[in-house]
Amino acid sequence: MIAQRLQHSKFGFSKTIDLPFKEAVQKVRGALKDEGFGILCEIDIKEKLKEKLGVDFRDYVILGACNPPLAYRTLQQEIGIGLLLPCNVIVYETELGKSEVAAIDAKTMLSVVGSDNATLNSVADEVNEKLERVISGL
Amino acid sequence: MIAQRLQHSKFGFSKTIDLPFKEAVQKVRGALKDEGFGILCEIDIKEKLKEKLGVDFRDYVILGACNPPLAYRTLQQEIGIGLLLPCNVIVYETELGKSEVAAIDAKTMLSVVGSDNATLNSVADEVNEKLERVISGL
Repeated sequence: MIAQRLQHSKFGFSKTIDLPFKEAVQKVRGALKDEGFGILCEIDIKEKLKEKLGVDFRDYVILGACNPPLAYRTLQQEIGIGLLLPCNVIVYETELGKSEVAAIDAKTMLSVVGSDNATLNSVADEVNEKLERVISGL
Repeated sequence: MIAQRLQHSKFGFSKTIDLPFKEAVQKVRGALKDEGFGILCEIDIKEKLKEKLGVDFRDYVILGACNPPLAYRTLQQEIGIGLLLPCNVIVYETELGKSEVAAIDAKTMLSVVGSDNATLNSVADEVNEKLERVISGL
């Protein structure tokens, strides 16, 4: 069960789950929705690399997740925060029947900006709590 | 001309340009293309906030820019780098006939990961050079 523990790195929160890629993506979508995240954009890395460079890559998707009320609060505080939106959640194939899921750490990303804005920090905490629940609940 | 100088903050590179929103977005698209960036996703913030929350917001777009060969090099070095992809470029309306354009600072974003991988750092430098040229050339 070691592989199923929630990992927390500087990068974000991640977990290896016992699901093939497509089922994993489906489960992640549902879990994000349950926490109020819509998916604003979706990038199929495997498909793009094949199309643009002709190379073969593993199944890999980037989901751009956004919780509209929280995004609105941050944009009202800091108009440039769009540079850090949406919150990326990635899913990729590891080995047969297993997938890795990871979500960005919003608080760490915000720290790059060196923000001392209390609202922004509080929203980042809230986003992280939600993303942690998404990943740990998979 | 002060407003037209390239600004460099922790957030990224930005510039105010004397173009209305739609023309500014068009110009940014062309400039990104000239530096080898495709736009993998596009988020119309104004439209999304109206649709999801019923609120009015200024014209604002997030363009998810990606240079495929550079993205591929980073993914081969660090499979989790998708959490930091694509490179966001934002355009928003400031006042009548003026728009603000900003691009993420890839090197600063990478520093969040605390990476000492020489290839990743070199790619981040290359991305920044390109993004700086995109913004300063507007």
